[in-house]
Amino acid sequence: MIVVLKHNVQKEKRDQLVDWLQDQGLTVHVSQGDYQTVLGLVGDTSRVDMALIESLNIVDSVKRITDPFKKSNRKFHPDDTIVEVGDVKVGKGNFVVIAGPCSVETEEQIVTVAKAVKAAGADMLRGGAFKPRTSPYDFQGLRAEGLRLLEIAKAETGLPLVTECMGVDDLPLFENVDVIQIGARNMQNYELLKAVGKLDKPILLKRGLANTLKELLMSAEYIMAGGNEKVILCERGIRTFDDYTRNTLDLAAVSMLRELTHLPIIVDPSHATGIARLVPPMAMAATASGCDGLIIEVHNDPMHALCDGAQSLRPDEFDKLMGRVKRIRDIITEE
Amino acid sequence: MIVVLKHNVQKEKRDQLVDWLQDQGLTVHVSQGDYQTVLGLVGDTSRVDMALIESLNIVDSVKRITDPFKKSNRKFHPDDTIVEVGDVKVGKGNFVVIAGPCSVETEEQIVTVAKAVKAAGADMLRGGAFKPRTSPYDFQGLRAEGLRLLEIAKAETGLPLVTECMGVDDLPLFENVDVIQIGARNMQNYELLKAVGKLDKPILLKRGLANTLKELLMSAEYIMAGGNEKVILCERGIRTFDDYTRNTLDLAAVSMLRELTHLPIIVDPSHATGIARLVPPMAMAATASGCDGLIIEVHNDPMHALCDGAQSLRPDEFDKLMGRVKRIRDIITEE
Amino acid sequence: MIVVLKHNVQKEKRDQLVDWLQDQGLTVHVSQGDYQTVLGLVGDTSRVDMALIESLNIVDSVKRITDPFKKSNRKFHPDDTIVEVGDVKVGKGNFVVIAGPCSVETEEQIVTVAKAVKAAGADMLRGGAFKPRTSPYDFQGLRAEGLRLLEIAKAETGLPLVTECMGVDDLPLFENVDVIQIGARNMQNYELLKAVGKLDKPILLKRGLANTLKELLMSAEYIMAGGNEKVILCERGIRTFDDYTRNTLDLAAVSMLRELTHLPIIVDPSHATGIARLVPPMAMAATASGCDGLIIEVHNDPMHALCDGAQSLRPDEFDKLMGRVKRIRDIITEE
Amino acid sequence: MIVVLKHNVQKEKRDQLVDWLQDQGLTVHVSQGDYQTVLGLVGDTSRVDMALIESLNIVDSVKRITDPFKKSNRKFHPDDTIVEVGDVKVGKGNFVVIAGPCSVETEEQIVTVAKAVKAAGADMLRGGAFKPRTSPYDFQGLRAEGLRLLEIAKAETGLPLVTECMGVDDLPLFENVDVIQIGARNMQNYELLKAVGKLDKPILLKRGLANTLKELLMSAEYIMAGGNEKVILCERGIRTFDDYTRNTLDLAAVSMLRELTHLPIIVDPSHATGIARLVPPMAMAATASGCDGLIIEVHNDPMHALCDGAQSLRPDEFDKLMGRVKRIRDIITEE
Repeated sequence: MIVVLKHNVQKEKRDQLVDWLQDQGLTVHVSQGDYQTVLGLVGDTSRVDMALIESLNIVDSVKRITDPFKKSNRKFHPDDTIVEVGDVKVGKGNFVVIAGPCSVETEEQIVTVAKAVKAAGADMLRGGAFKPRTSPYDFQGLRAEGLRLLEIAKAETGLPLVTECMGVDDLPLFENVDVIQIGARNMQNYELLKAVGKLDKPILLKRGLANTLKELLMSAEYIMAGGNEKVILCERGIRTFDDYTRNTLDLAAVSMLRELTHLPIIVDPSHATGIARLVPPMAMAATASGCDGLIIEVHNDPMHALCDGAQSLRPDEFDKLMGRVKRIRDIITEE
Repeated sequence: MIVVLKHNVQKEKRDQLVDWLQDQGLTVHVSQGDYQTVLGLVGDTSRVDMALIESLNIVDSVKRITDPFKKSNRKFHPDDTIVEVGDVKVGKGNFVVIAGPCSVETEEQIVTVAKAVKAAGADMLRGGAFKPRTSPYDFQGLRAEGLRLLEIAKAETGLPLVTECMGVDDLPLFENVDVIQIGARNMQNYELLKAVGKLDKPILLKRGLANTLKELLMSAEYIMAGGNEKVILCERGIRTFDDYTRNTLDLAAVSMLRELTHLPIIVDPSHATGIARLVPPMAMAATASGCDGLIIEVHNDPMHALCDGAQSLRPDEFDKLMGRVKRIRDIITEE
Repeated sequence: MIVVLKHNVQKEKRDQLVDWLQDQGLTVHVSQGDYQTVLGLVGDTSRVDMALIESLNIVDSVKRITDPFKKSNRKFHPDDTIVEVGDVKVGKGNFVVIAGPCSVETEEQIVTVAKAVKAAGADMLRGGAFKPRTSPYDFQGLRAEGLRLLEIAKAETGLPLVTECMGVDDLPLFENVDVIQIGARNMQNYELLKAVGKLDKPILLKRGLANTLKELLMSAEYIMAGGNEKVILCERGIRTFDDYTRNTLDLAAVSMLRELTHLPIIVDPSHATGIARLVPPMAMAATASGCDGLIIEVHNDPMHALCDGAQSLRPDEFDKLMGRVKRIRDIITEE
Repeated sequence: MIVVLKHNVQKEKRDQLVDWLQDQGLTVHVSQGDYQTVLGLVGDTSRVDMALIESLNIVDSVKRITDPFKKSNRKFHPDDTIVEVGDVKVGKGNFVVIAGPCSVETEEQIVTVAKAVKAAGADMLRGGAFKPRTSPYDFQGLRAEGLRLLEIAKAETGLPLVTECMGVDDLPLFENVDVIQIGARNMQNYELLKAVGKLDKPILLKRGLANTLKELLMSAEYIMAGGNEKVILCERGIRTFDDYTRNTLDLAAVSMLRELTHLPIIVDPSHATGIARLVPPMAMAATASGCDGLIIEVHNDPMHALCDGAQSLRPDEFDKLMGRVKRIRDIITEE
């Protein structure tokens, strides 16, 4: 950790700070420049409160030179991690497509969509049983009943299940779910992160809509610190000044996360844009950016089918997209 | 709700949409213009999925003209709400100051600070027992023991307690807490919102760092829909491109929330800036903007005292600030 | 234009507003609902000050239902525009790659790079002669001398020239330049936009780092209103809370602009990320998103070559990227 | 400047970088840690391209420890600067209020408003003659004629004039203007900044809507580097995800700029919010935050007067506000 002091700091103040840092077990190298003094701290700086030091009135700025994330950090685990979901592998060259409806509605609906996405080549089935809705008056999902319907669809198709859990108390219901999704709104719900960190089950962790990549990795770290290292990261759009799409899909995050972590990284073009007709171009762009997979909303609802609507694709649109995604994937992975 | 169709939509497509809307029990007024057609929807539009309609390929845009929040909406409750915390009143002209340390550390610490802030005129005591930390390796608070120490400070000073709860399972521990804080990271943790909505206890709801005012009110609505209408809102800074302070304090939100809702609105200048020396100017600015109170970090830690550090004020700084805040408050409330 | 009035507006106030709107030559349809009144304005609303009406204390919100941009609007010009630069066509299925160094430095440098990018298949040469630098103490470009060196490179390779102009007074120097670039910082420099609107020369208009798509189109409109309809739009990253790349590349903007306008849209992955190793994945992602071209920084500087540095690609990296871009382009354009 | 290298960088690569830095005249201190190597650069680093170094594939990050702004930097000029405009002083305890209409419309209008704001205690008159409008079809201001009307208002009231210039070629018209305003859209129009840097006339430099404080100071530096050190900075709201006001007023910027620079800092609550009824609370908040002045829109237009509209205050509202602003100013400046 490097601490840059302000111009003209009194020697006495500086020495008080150095003493205090040394009392915390750190070695402090003082480097005196013409306009500024720089302190280099060596030792276990992970427990040093960087914000506190930065806020001292004699301090100009602080720079951490070791990352606060450990288990998710590529520096300490250079090889890509593969997360296994039944027979499906994610990461280290294994590309997966997760598809299904936004919400589970009926047995017929989820089974029909499951068969359709399987036929098109999807590797896993998604479908919301517990729905995080901005309004308490909106439909909150079929909850336990929705999980039961998902299990039927899995029995019919063999597709592993991916679905969101919103609260610690609901976790026992998710025993037959293959991948538990932590949604963007809960990315920093630490009690939930700790709880899924104790499971032996893959976790799909979505980036919060205003969270940095390092915060995403710190949330992965909460799960991994509990013993569960089967974490799949998901970029799903961030909130910006721009409002023509629901969120702004941040594809450079895929390449940057690749450097920072060994965990698999997938992309959700459906929630990122909120507009079905933007999903195919963004799914192809995400694939070209080098991600490890996609999670895409597909439905067979007549209203949607009628008007080409919502953020969900129709099965035929999804099928066509899958063909193009595979060919783009081939181009970027060949030697 | 108003639905603006795209230019040159086929009559057949338009009629299909109108039929579908009517099937949902809505009356549809069609207004045909030269370049665009506008549909006016009358009836119970609260259950209409605005995002779905907006995403249809024949739709240009959708505008909700009734707000999705009801119980928190000033339209339906024109009078300011007063939230009572023991003898302390918040809102409708009642200005409160909540003060105390970031974290509860020791009995001596919390009692000393409690006495100091009471002497300076604070109305309630804050102090973190459960701490939401970005890193799983950082200190997570004294938890149950911290609550016990807060209760001692309350017994010594009579100040009501304000402290954060992060998980549904911890709620039973908060019985003697006077105001439960829902932190910014949990603003959309709906399971937690629903749980505190069943309590008969004031809730301090902090704005999430990338949430709109309407989302904040929808989260208040989650609490109120459960029966608990004692909600105090808190502006504490939003995340923007700017990085010289931890967050950007959004004071116009106070005036705008005043128009939208009857709930009391307080401001947290400590977390908004993260820098102690910015807390007094921002606390005074918040007061001048017309908020119903402040929540401010105060400590008596020697390191802090030494270097004027962190985002916490020393008791003497807090005392001086309180005097100025009261005088500014007098100016803006006189006739 | 639709004006939604607030709840409980007095009839007298409402009528005053309606009278005032009618005095401006508009027809006003009043639609009275239970909670709100909606005014529909018909006529030439382009001169109505939407912000003024929105700010009235009896008005809840205002919605424009016709776009303020005309000449750039796809509604009025459904066919894609092709901008011709010498023999090179941009748009309507014509994909172009513009490549070259950030700054023109020496004759040898610019000619060498020009030959290299031509050999790899680039269609035009870019290179900065006038450089917009945040600091007045930084190198400001070779200016007129830089333009002269670009002309030499054009003579040697036949590649059309794309280079930035920052001020009206410099325009006479750009006579032999084929495409004048308006940089992101000048996207709303209206005097400059008006000046290039009087030229008969293609303009490459970059999106400002915090500008919406509609503001970008309004700036295009400034150029087109002057008579010059040869405008190429360029997405080059926006400013967000995220700081791991210089800007956040917004690829969904490409698809959305495609719907809003008939003008060609290219992408600049070099400035969007500021990091050379992110340029190939983002260039491929942009291609997959369906843009009409790319503008990429390529250099042959030994320091860069040594360390794989900056945001520029080496000629061999660019050559490899070009092959992949072409194959991705083939996939997304086939029937 | 501090350069942090990545983990496991080869010694050979590191030495190449060190050699290259030394060739540029810098002294390089190498500090080898367990996981990372840190290079400390001493010498004239102002001409070192920080972005280039940061982008090298062996570099983790770069930190500048001396600011790139010099003339505007408080480190080198600890005393507050006073900018004198005729008899009016701005800065170092001198608080000014600039008021007037958004646009100059008629002689009667500008003279009437000028007299009204003078009577209420304003120190200078503002009024737009050249208007930066998003749309080329909107009213662009009376231009030269507007300047002439402003001069009449100055002759009648003695108030110094503040008005915006948008292009270098218009500057000769501004000879009788007392303070030239550079608008937010032109904050990085470097040709314009250089041109006003050659004048002997105060410049009011507004912060761009997505610019950092350091970028604002670098733009001030462009003006000051040309010889004109009479620069007044203005915070006027930034663009964020939030859309309930036109921009988000960033008042902590006032306190932070106070630390970074010796230049006076004023606040524009009218453009920051775009809503007249938010102007008084934000003007009072800005005053409480410790700024050196305010710039406020005031008009006497009957439509506005009728409906309490737009972002402008009526003269009576402005008069009432002035009284409160003065009393708040007294509170924060007393010992």
